[in-house]
Amino acid sequence: MPSDLDTAMMIRALDLARHAASEREVPVGAIVYRTATGEVLGTGSNRRENDRQPHAHAEFTAIVRACEAIGDWRLNDCTLVVTLEPCPMCAGLIVNARVGRVVFGASDPKAGAVTSLMQLLSDPRLNHRPTEFVQGLMAEESAMLLKEFFRGLRTSG
Amino acid sequence: MPSDLDTAMMIRALDLARHAASEREVPVGAIVYRTATGEVLGTGSNRRENDRQPHAHAEFTAIVRACEAIGDWRLNDCTLVVTLEPCPMCAGLIVNARVGRVVFGASDPKAGAVTSLMQLLSDPRLNHRPTEFVQGLMAEESAMLLKEFFRGLRTSG
Repeated sequence: MPSDLDTAMMIRALDLARHAASEREVPVGAIVYRTATGEVLGTGSNRRENDRQPHAHAEFTAIVRACEAIGDWRLNDCTLVVTLEPCPMCAGLIVNARVGRVVFGASDPKAGAVTSLMQLLSDPRLNHRPTEFVQGLMAEESAMLLKEFFRGLRTSG
Repeated sequence: MPSDLDTAMMIRALDLARHAASEREVPVGAIVYRTATGEVLGTGSNRRENDRQPHAHAEFTAIVRACEAIGDWRLNDCTLVVTLEPCPMCAGLIVNARVGRVVFGASDPKAGAVTSLMQLLSDPRLNHRPTEFVQGLMAEESAMLLKEFFRGLRTSG
């Protein structure tokens, strides 16, 4: 179940997604926070086109920054909140970084690796699984941002 | 089938893996080169413990550096050579970066996402698949480095 902190963080993640759109990036935003205290350790918005990097996804950046902030590659006591379902690369990073909880908004039927195309966060063969993942938190708001962005791309040719 | 270039690059990647071991990192090395010319665009060795970052895998670093070198997130005309089968995170990055060819050495029965645990590079639902992947090139040399490393860890307690 999402907590009040999750909801507050998702509202901020949606702002980060809007920021991405303002930079002509697919609007996705993400935050990593300490589950117990709500301390924000890392934030990210999608930067693939501007950074010209295939890994510059919102949740990837948020996780890398959180690891920098605490000086450790393990995030067991943290929650990742992201507006869109993670892709295989980001789900793999969540496993590698041992992220404790994951909350996402809209599902991604084309590349989602948590529930849609595959279930990387609940695969018992991998050496870590989050204790919990929550899907669909403010999913309509996230999906609406994505829809508006892609409609804008089509009309601007 | 591996080309002579693949073999030459794997010999260099094994050197990068030995360098990782000398820094007390799990010995894995990787190179990205232009398939047609053999120009090396990026190299990497495993740096997870020293960098304190969950994404500091050899092939991840090699791909990120190759994208920096060419100023593009697409590596369609490149080959990745890596001494160990990529994990889900790195296989996801290979898909996202549209890497043209992938050559790896030893298989990873615990986390390999190319042939062992899952087959991310041949999944028709994802939006990219390498035109070719080659497994097992100099696999014994790679496996021996890993075995020696973990034996050393156990005996050093």
